[in-house]
Amino acid sequence: MSLPPVVVAVPTEEIRDRLGALPGAEVVVWDVGDAPLGRHIDLLLARYFLPAEALAALAGLPVSAVQSQSLGYDNVAAHLPPGITFCNAVGVHEASTAELALALTLASRRGFDEFRDAQVRRAWEHTRQPGLQGSNVVLVGVGGVGAATARRLAPFEVSLTLVARTARESDLGHVHGMDELPAILPTADVLILAVPLTADTTGLVSTAMLSHLQPGAVVVNVSRGAVIDTDALVEAVRTRGIRAAIDVTDPEPLPADHPLWSLPGVIITPHVGGDTGAMDRHVDRLLRDQVARLVAGEPLEHVVIAGGAG
Amino acid sequence: MSLPPVVVAVPTEEIRDRLGALPGAEVVVWDVGDAPLGRHIDLLLARYFLPAEALAALAGLPVSAVQSQSLGYDNVAAHLPPGITFCNAVGVHEASTAELALALTLASRRGFDEFRDAQVRRAWEHTRQPGLQGSNVVLVGVGGVGAATARRLAPFEVSLTLVARTARESDLGHVHGMDELPAILPTADVLILAVPLTADTTGLVSTAMLSHLQPGAVVVNVSRGAVIDTDALVEAVRTRGIRAAIDVTDPEPLPADHPLWSLPGVIITPHVGGDTGAMDRHVDRLLRDQVARLVAGEPLEHVVIAGGAG
Repeated sequence: MSLPPVVVAVPTEEIRDRLGALPGAEVVVWDVGDAPLGRHIDLLLARYFLPAEALAALAGLPVSAVQSQSLGYDNVAAHLPPGITFCNAVGVHEASTAELALALTLASRRGFDEFRDAQVRRAWEHTRQPGLQGSNVVLVGVGGVGAATARRLAPFEVSLTLVARTARESDLGHVHGMDELPAILPTADVLILAVPLTADTTGLVSTAMLSHLQPGAVVVNVSRGAVIDTDALVEAVRTRGIRAAIDVTDPEPLPADHPLWSLPGVIITPHVGGDTGAMDRHVDRLLRDQVARLVAGEPLEHVVIAGGAG
Repeated sequence: MSLPPVVVAVPTEEIRDRLGALPGAEVVVWDVGDAPLGRHIDLLLARYFLPAEALAALAGLPVSAVQSQSLGYDNVAAHLPPGITFCNAVGVHEASTAELALALTLASRRGFDEFRDAQVRRAWEHTRQPGLQGSNVVLVGVGGVGAATARRLAPFEVSLTLVARTARESDLGHVHGMDELPAILPTADVLILAVPLTADTTGLVSTAMLSHLQPGAVVVNVSRGAVIDTDALVEAVRTRGIRAAIDVTDPEPLPADHPLWSLPGVIITPHVGGDTGAMDRHVDRLLRDQVARLVAGEPLEHVVIAGGAG
């Protein structure tokens, strides 16, 4: 007896062609906002960087579940129609986001912003930079990205302090509670933010929190822009010599007239934490695994919002 | 009975003040090129980046030994007057140079040159970059800097191939011989140069060697500029899409009218591999250790040219 195939929708022909045949499944090309497909979709792969607001367009459509290509899912619950299951992209972005955290940290501590600007002026300007070796690094967030960041920092001869919502012991060592952060920050040379955006972490890096950092310390953000109070950061950079190396901003994209673009000691990358040549391969693997579960009659993994409609 | 103190000369008052008291030794301020001190110097700390040619000025002066602040000592033997011992700065620069190798590698693989230029234009331009995860990295040189680089690469989920003068097994894994390099390069995404400059390594990265690299591969150099045939590199970047992230150049400093400055895919830092906030502390420790050996009547360590005059 042959069961009907699991129907998987992907947003582009390119992705369909890349995936090839998925045993027991039929892959159709359909994107949020397209005209209704007229058939049931068991799993919809959302396009990368689909705004949460766009999910509202799924209301009334026969879609059982959405597989996101992002790890963060702030704001999704407010827009996803009831009954639809939502899975985040665990295992796709952690390594590349942690890699970017190291790249931003090293770029700031080795003065790559100054050296690039000197290169453009064709000027060989040797200056001493602080470097990373021997630095005190405070890492906030020890989930997937945080843990991958900690592992990559390990050989760099730094003193690493871990902070998360609640104090605990972990495979990575002792984790301090968020309430201890103000007391920890005065010794920090590098503050790396690798937390999800939640009600608790929105505006976490405030004027008060920044006041605990010493001049020259760098704030590295590979999480979400709103974890930092942007106006407070601008003020701290301008008046206290705080540095920043950030892949995410609030607002995002950063408007052309925003002061952050040109402040000395600020490095900005355009939200490329998870977007590398390795990403598609990880997305494909995740989607294949999820489809295989549906074909086998097993539940999806990485469910962050349970639709409950079965 | 009290022995006469060991006389140590350092090039600046700042260094003398930083060192403080060295038991059994007298620290005097004297630099190569200053008027003769009129007394015997047991150990002279050369200033950082002292050109090898300047060592000729020590001819006829009562200096027993020179402690360099650099790891490389190419060209020193040709200029150091006979009878003077020369020690290189083992343990001072390996970590920071390896750190820079990672910083340059990550900056190139994550497109930090493009993103910095976009930042200066106040433009949020999201582009996909190759990233480091999953890359094939070929590391040439497994001495102090090479080994420290390999350790820092370990958590980045790369495939690492080690190459040195002769094939052998090492703590870091199998090391391929230099004769195998042409056969290894076609699969390389990243080629990191961490060899000393010797007759064998001068011009190692030649037109022929570069022809084995695939377009998009990046050559990272934290060694000495002359390990690369600069004209060959310029040609490979211009015509074959080879990338470069280099801390050292030939000639050095790179003249303002040199084509390397403005070629796309080229990142240049001004020979700052060993120069970070951690350097002075490492130099001080090295010098203290060397002086303690002299005071104890023991031989100096890290002797690369033996003076033999005792």
